[in-house]
Amino acid sequence: MNEFPLIQWIRNRQKKSKNVICGIGDDCAVINTSKDKLCLITTDMLVDGTHFDLKKHQVADVGRKAIACSISDIASMGCKPTVAVISICFPHGTKNSFAKKLYAGIWAIANKYNVDIVGGDIISGKCPFCINVTMLGKDEGLRPIYRSGAKAGDQILATGKLGGSLLGKHMLFEPRLNESLTLNKNFTIHAMIDISDGLTADLNHILEESDVGAILSEDNIPISADALRMSKKTGQTPLHHALSDGEDYELLVVLPKIQAKKVLTSRLFPKGIFSCIGEIVENHGIWLRNANGKLRRIRAEGYKHS
Amino acid sequence: MNEFPLIQWIRNRQKKSKNVICGIGDDCAVINTSKDKLCLITTDMLVDGTHFDLKKHQVADVGRKAIACSISDIASMGCKPTVAVISICFPHGTKNSFAKKLYAGIWAIANKYNVDIVGGDIISGKCPFCINVTMLGKDEGLRPIYRSGAKAGDQILATGKLGGSLLGKHMLFEPRLNESLTLNKNFTIHAMIDISDGLTADLNHILEESDVGAILSEDNIPISADALRMSKKTGQTPLHHALSDGEDYELLVVLPKIQAKKVLTSRLFPKGIFSCIGEIVENHGIWLRNANGKLRRIRAEGYKHS
Repeated sequence: MNEFPLIQWIRNRQKKSKNVICGIGDDCAVINTSKDKLCLITTDMLVDGTHFDLKKHQVADVGRKAIACSISDIASMGCKPTVAVISICFPHGTKNSFAKKLYAGIWAIANKYNVDIVGGDIISGKCPFCINVTMLGKDEGLRPIYRSGAKAGDQILATGKLGGSLLGKHMLFEPRLNESLTLNKNFTIHAMIDISDGLTADLNHILEESDVGAILSEDNIPISADALRMSKKTGQTPLHHALSDGEDYELLVVLPKIQAKKVLTSRLFPKGIFSCIGEIVENHGIWLRNANGKLRRIRAEGYKHS
Repeated sequence: MNEFPLIQWIRNRQKKSKNVICGIGDDCAVINTSKDKLCLITTDMLVDGTHFDLKKHQVADVGRKAIACSISDIASMGCKPTVAVISICFPHGTKNSFAKKLYAGIWAIANKYNVDIVGGDIISGKCPFCINVTMLGKDEGLRPIYRSGAKAGDQILATGKLGGSLLGKHMLFEPRLNESLTLNKNFTIHAMIDISDGLTADLNHILEESDVGAILSEDNIPISADALRMSKKTGQTPLHHALSDGEDYELLVVLPKIQAKKVLTSRLFPKGIFSCIGEIVENHGIWLRNANGKLRRIRAEGYKHS
């Protein structure tokens, strides 16, 4: 089953009342909970053997990742996480020590980002280990940043380096919450997303929601050392990995040219954290521009879990 | 692994900020989202082969149940459900038609109770079919009803008939939302819970949180026809099934004697929906009083999923 057409199918049929500011179709749902306050909610399910592998990964890192993914979703809206609920299915025969290690990882990162775990559901099942995190966030007077605000002429920034996250970063990434809040407080941001499916796949979410296209500059894509290492394993180019690999959990930021310039030179951020990787254009699709200025259209390829 | 000691262990170590009115340990978590409004949140995970069986049950009924369980949780706090997010893990090879039938069941009940599905996470995994629902609720000016308010001298009411829900009701129950809201609006309720683990197990949650005990009147326990049928299969008494079976999703209500009398004779409810099954006492534990007035202590036995 392909999930994207299904989500679209669901979205087209979903009832939406006036208090739902943003339902299915963005990183978080936004609900008006009072006249002056927005409540954000996001949910993520991770399953052993699919999103991590307990034969290779520490269970504390799995707990950490489950929380970090949700923080990253709320960060991608430019808002602040507040509370989370966690559902866990333990396979029959799981030991208590396993659960305690899991929660050690959960608490370490939750406390770091001031997220309260306020409830959950713990079950035993005939099932691999599975964890679901639902997290709420608040706007704190800031406007949530949606996928739908990109405009032709805007520039596209990305944080960090991309690709090859399966070699380690996908378990240990730091969600870009501080950068996101600083962006939202101090700059005009038109659209934002976190890179979970892959650079081109997530960019494509913005393009579809905003009804625009994009040109990426081949030479400006920030390629990680792990993308290079990965490339030696797979025979694909490092660029391919930076464009297509998932789970980097970096921010993809779309903003007016003059704002982009300000962000790139701002002392509010660690030096070199942002790369300007391209621009928004009217024509639909994603193009890659090489050093000679030649354009070739590329597909929005996303990382799929096996 | 036994989940209750683990939850207690987690709860004892859980950080809790002042905006968390009620965290781990009740049917819903309650978070103060603004100066005059409370936001409730509850989460439930259901797994094929454990909480339902796709070889026997319609997938639409599974979707319905997943939503109904969360509505029942919010109803057990005397509050109103508002929005939900749904995570689903489909086993590899699941057909789209399966997901569409699932959502038909979800929407039917969500629309009936004015719950907006505002987001979710759909994944494919090496896993049985698994669904997690997180639902938010609001108090609408009503005070949420916790497990911790029961007082010696209070009476214990239950809605409906109990036991044997595995014969069908556990998939098709109607959450007692209307009854719950009417109770909260018109009467003084000290404690409330929905019967999901079993009458004695859920009563015990109230007793532990309220630091009291209870005497149940054997003759007044409302035994369902399915508890009778079940008893013929298992050789246990119908009473045993009414006391111990899980997933009835009826309300267990603790309130002052004078309020109980008002509820039992109120025209706000369908006739005969409430039974007065016992009273709260100071001494810890649960006792069963038979027709002759003899007391015997019973254990809080809960239904466990296989």
